[in-house]
Amino acid sequence: MKNYYSSNFKLGILGGGQLGRMLLAETQKLDIHTSILETNKNAPCAEICNTFVVGDLLDFDAVYNFGKTVDVLTIEIENVNLDALDKLEDEGLTIFPKPKDLRIIQNKARQKNFYVDHEIPTAEFSHFAHSTEIKHSYENNTIDFPFVWKAARFGYDGNGVKIVRNIEDLESLPNVECITEKLIPFKNELAVIVARNAAGAVKTYPVVEMEFHPEANQVEYVICPARIHSTIAEKAREVALKVVSDLDFVGLLAVEMFQTVDDKILVNEVAPRPHNSGHYSIEASYTNQFEQHLRSILNLPLGNTDSKVAGIMVNLVGEEGFSGDVIYENIEEILKIDGVTPHIYGKKETRPFRKMGHVTIVNSDIDIARKVAQEVKETIRVISKNN
Amino acid sequence: MKNYYSSNFKLGILGGGQLGRMLLAETQKLDIHTSILETNKNAPCAEICNTFVVGDLLDFDAVYNFGKTVDVLTIEIENVNLDALDKLEDEGLTIFPKPKDLRIIQNKARQKNFYVDHEIPTAEFSHFAHSTEIKHSYENNTIDFPFVWKAARFGYDGNGVKIVRNIEDLESLPNVECITEKLIPFKNELAVIVARNAAGAVKTYPVVEMEFHPEANQVEYVICPARIHSTIAEKAREVALKVVSDLDFVGLLAVEMFQTVDDKILVNEVAPRPHNSGHYSIEASYTNQFEQHLRSILNLPLGNTDSKVAGIMVNLVGEEGFSGDVIYENIEEILKIDGVTPHIYGKKETRPFRKMGHVTIVNSDIDIARKVAQEVKETIRVISKNN
Repeated sequence: MKNYYSSNFKLGILGGGQLGRMLLAETQKLDIHTSILETNKNAPCAEICNTFVVGDLLDFDAVYNFGKTVDVLTIEIENVNLDALDKLEDEGLTIFPKPKDLRIIQNKARQKNFYVDHEIPTAEFSHFAHSTEIKHSYENNTIDFPFVWKAARFGYDGNGVKIVRNIEDLESLPNVECITEKLIPFKNELAVIVARNAAGAVKTYPVVEMEFHPEANQVEYVICPARIHSTIAEKAREVALKVVSDLDFVGLLAVEMFQTVDDKILVNEVAPRPHNSGHYSIEASYTNQFEQHLRSILNLPLGNTDSKVAGIMVNLVGEEGFSGDVIYENIEEILKIDGVTPHIYGKKETRPFRKMGHVTIVNSDIDIARKVAQEVKETIRVISKNN
Repeated sequence: MKNYYSSNFKLGILGGGQLGRMLLAETQKLDIHTSILETNKNAPCAEICNTFVVGDLLDFDAVYNFGKTVDVLTIEIENVNLDALDKLEDEGLTIFPKPKDLRIIQNKARQKNFYVDHEIPTAEFSHFAHSTEIKHSYENNTIDFPFVWKAARFGYDGNGVKIVRNIEDLESLPNVECITEKLIPFKNELAVIVARNAAGAVKTYPVVEMEFHPEANQVEYVICPARIHSTIAEKAREVALKVVSDLDFVGLLAVEMFQTVDDKILVNEVAPRPHNSGHYSIEASYTNQFEQHLRSILNLPLGNTDSKVAGIMVNLVGEEGFSGDVIYENIEEILKIDGVTPHIYGKKETRPFRKMGHVTIVNSDIDIARKVAQEVKETIRVISKNN
């Protein structure tokens, strides 16, 4: 095995946001030295990695030059310059997840085409070079309201996804490359995280169930295990494994899925890294997703993905109407409750719906955990003195 | 509540070793900004806290000047300059644990006198200004071999404790202030960690059982929960609570105890901080000892001290015969086993018996965990290419 524990070994991470921050807890545990490239000099990882480099993640030179200083390269955000990664890989650098997979995943149209090409179940879709072209389809009666619009690139925290219900909604869309999808009536939104290392070892985490905030299109609760029939869970795991296998993926892949009203499993989208739907694992799982990400990209044996206890995650997002220096109102109230762990991401300023942290609730009884989660959600508020 | 999550708030920590490193995982989780004073510029915390200051922890000016830059001050090692802490406290700085308690604990003779004064059960002892004076007692027949010798100050990792069996052992002792204790025949060595915040809330962790390496006087296994009768566990918890109450202690206190052959509980010694006997809590407990330390010193509500699963901790100490750049031989073998988590402290060089890390083994079945712990112990080796 490579001596990862030597200060001569450097793991490079593209991106220094909250996912990077939680990944650093694990590199510190294993004493793996980290170097981070990040656009924002005040990002959550700024002061707690071994080397922090400020540079544009979408700039070829910034990414290429950074890559030349590290031994293994990974990401905590997929919107990075892929031409630089291709060149670095050609020159022999170990990069996981693979640049070719990031290229498929970075663009939602390419991602959807991949599912179709590999007979992976997904909602029907159309691809447009510009949103304005959707209007022609509408006029030609080839598209009907309502439908889901998704920017092909750089969708994040819900800004890249809209439900289009009428002509006004249609005309207010950003004019970018996009896809449209039929609005699928579904029973549940599910997710499965799959880890695969370079040697081909694969493990799946339990299926989780997600509840979304109806307006912000952000996850409100992630519930592990999902309260679904075991045959549905098995089907979801199989679909997720097929995606990983067809991509020949190495690393951690979070596969988001719909369970339709007739119990079909459709892939919604994937994320090639630790994911919001796996944060519960820090407190609930034998091996959390961040440690598992490291194990997979460093070709170490994968850890046990089972849970010790049931886990529920509540996102802490900025309250509407507040912008500025953040205050976590009533955090001391939730600390009084057994099994409640807040994670604060270290962002100085809150904005409406900005992800500022999350809270994990664990309990041996999932119904108790669910009640506590509600109590947490109703108690803590992410606000600011300025509004 | 104080806004700990503002970058204007600074938690000062005296010491930047492995305990500080594990504490930083929790300050990062809660986004509490840290400033560390540490003598060794390459210490485990060097690159991963917000501010790292190199300075001698025993030097008045270094500690005093550092204290003036922080809002709350705590320790991860108790051997620090107490006169500086007294002055900082007089000037209004919040310091937990309290300097007066550190003064009692720092000196083992003072610690033992405290137990006697408060009728806390402990082994009989004698106090000597210099080890050479023990010889007079021996010549006057007031002391008999074998006995336990302990340096009054700065005992660490076993260097300050010896079993004296004959006149040669006696003559080879360092000539420092010390105590001698009767060698107590005991069934078990136990420990209880107690947390208390400034508001007076108190919680105890389950009683753990320790197995020591016979030569190095270092813990080999810490087993939680201890496999003892519940009446003994209850007695141990009561004694630990009495120590905390009599000290009027704020923070985390690890109380090490003997269970004698006739089932008495005797206090051996205490540590006023997160402790080796609580490392299992990172993986096994609802609230780990490092998060609990933060909760107690910041006067936050204390977390649940129950365990999710049984936990066993194996210390990773440098193998005899090896010194130099460290190699963790077979670490990838132990990563294959379910429920095994290594913690590597980030020390560049190994030495015989140096604490280099630990491994936690968790399982819902303690007997399986104990078998796995043995397997881990027999598999991983902390060595060096140089020897």
